[in-house]
Amino acid sequence: MARKGTLVDRDKLFEAIQAKQSYLCVGLDPDPDRIPSCFGAGVEALELFCNSIVSCTSHVAVAFKPNLAFFESYGPAGIEALHRIVDKIPADCLVIADAKRGDIGNTASKYASALFDSLGADAATVAPYMGEDSVRPFTDRKDKWTILLALTSNPGADDFEFHGTPPLFERVLSRSLTWGSTDNLMFVVGATRPDLISRIREIVPESFLLVPGVGAQGGSLSEVAKVGLNSTCGLLVNSSRGILYASENPSSCDAANQASRKEAENLAMQMALTLHR
Amino acid sequence: MARKGTLVDRDKLFEAIQAKQSYLCVGLDPDPDRIPSCFGAGVEALELFCNSIVSCTSHVAVAFKPNLAFFESYGPAGIEALHRIVDKIPADCLVIADAKRGDIGNTASKYASALFDSLGADAATVAPYMGEDSVRPFTDRKDKWTILLALTSNPGADDFEFHGTPPLFERVLSRSLTWGSTDNLMFVVGATRPDLISRIREIVPESFLLVPGVGAQGGSLSEVAKVGLNSTCGLLVNSSRGILYASENPSSCDAANQASRKEAENLAMQMALTLHR
Repeated sequence: MARKGTLVDRDKLFEAIQAKQSYLCVGLDPDPDRIPSCFGAGVEALELFCNSIVSCTSHVAVAFKPNLAFFESYGPAGIEALHRIVDKIPADCLVIADAKRGDIGNTASKYASALFDSLGADAATVAPYMGEDSVRPFTDRKDKWTILLALTSNPGADDFEFHGTPPLFERVLSRSLTWGSTDNLMFVVGATRPDLISRIREIVPESFLLVPGVGAQGGSLSEVAKVGLNSTCGLLVNSSRGILYASENPSSCDAANQASRKEAENLAMQMALTLHR
Repeated sequence: MARKGTLVDRDKLFEAIQAKQSYLCVGLDPDPDRIPSCFGAGVEALELFCNSIVSCTSHVAVAFKPNLAFFESYGPAGIEALHRIVDKIPADCLVIADAKRGDIGNTASKYASALFDSLGADAATVAPYMGEDSVRPFTDRKDKWTILLALTSNPGADDFEFHGTPPLFERVLSRSLTWGSTDNLMFVVGATRPDLISRIREIVPESFLLVPGVGAQGGSLSEVAKVGLNSTCGLLVNSSRGILYASENPSSCDAANQASRKEAENLAMQMALTLHR
């Protein structure tokens, strides 16, 4: 029996944001080279570590975003662990399967089923390259969120996302808007380019944006908030490494958890301030 | 201990093609709604069916391309089955993990490790949207093939792949050429647009192309061969549904295998003719 999340539309998501006074998304990118040794080793450490992060941050996080690559690199046992981790995430937190899938229609349906039905995620990241029929099997699920890549936060974004006039990422936004609604389609927009978020807000004023790149990748929360917030918040800002590895060489798992909790609470507090401006 | 394929560069791949007089890639897209009932049900049927397809086509196939979505939709047990299926594929056939992954550098490394090391695939399909740092962790593996999406065979290809001047797919080809070599980087080019394959051959004359879309999607093998073949063949032509579901309602698994074998041999025979023109 798959998990059933409750943040199934924009109103529900905004309610959760108001209740927690936070639009924090915690990215679960469990890197075996960085998981504190007190959690043990192998896939057991992965699971224990992720469960701990969820426990000590879910009071201030409205979303958790497991990055599937990190689980898949452990083989089938890593995927099994991910299923158990997702099952334990509170129903009032959005679970975003960060999978960036994109394939022809009949294949995209299978990916949607794998992520939404088998894994029980509430949302999935999807890559736009192959166009409408690769995205529709996701957006056709009215009870689930599709999060389409638009402008990413990595250096390679310059290679293709700015190609053409208008730049490709703008075409992705404008063309895909009708493939879903503001109740089940949002977009990935990197925090490292706040100057462009204003432009993006003109194209998709009502949509939620999932914003990675705050913290380790150099983006600024206050700048993102200034240009990105809309009347229903409209932002989920992700932090992964900054929260997960908040302590270097912690003396114990308790100390590691304490550092992660503090970092998440600190971000949420900054977010609360931006919601009251 | 992961499987170790032997077709690690262009010469080795061309040798296999010459030996079999075929450039057939068999796509493994096991759809639970279409697997003949004689194979049983659930993940056991999936595994038995895929193993049967490999057994009855590997004498004429130089590559097998499992489509990960179809395995992932069965949950962790489907991935476990895929690992066992891959382990049994002969070392002189290329195993292409059709995963179309694409993510920032540190995540792409994990996907490469999941597909190449944990699963033991010889090749993986990769999506270009996020640019160089999302592709390099794959092409940095000199002993493995990266197969980058360029021009796909689906209707949605029109949405973004033709955007800009030159069209996006041409920019992907020209820009990514130096990210790998002709010994470890090839491109996906759909069979449904043979007119454009000539243009693509001008940009990447030496590269191997993985060509889906022959058969169920309507592409023509002879047209693709006419414009796509180069001095080391340079083509892998994929057929999935046409081979897998060659018989409707077969009376037995033997009958199903027989139909699949016949369809694969038929395609290979057509390919042999094009190699001797």
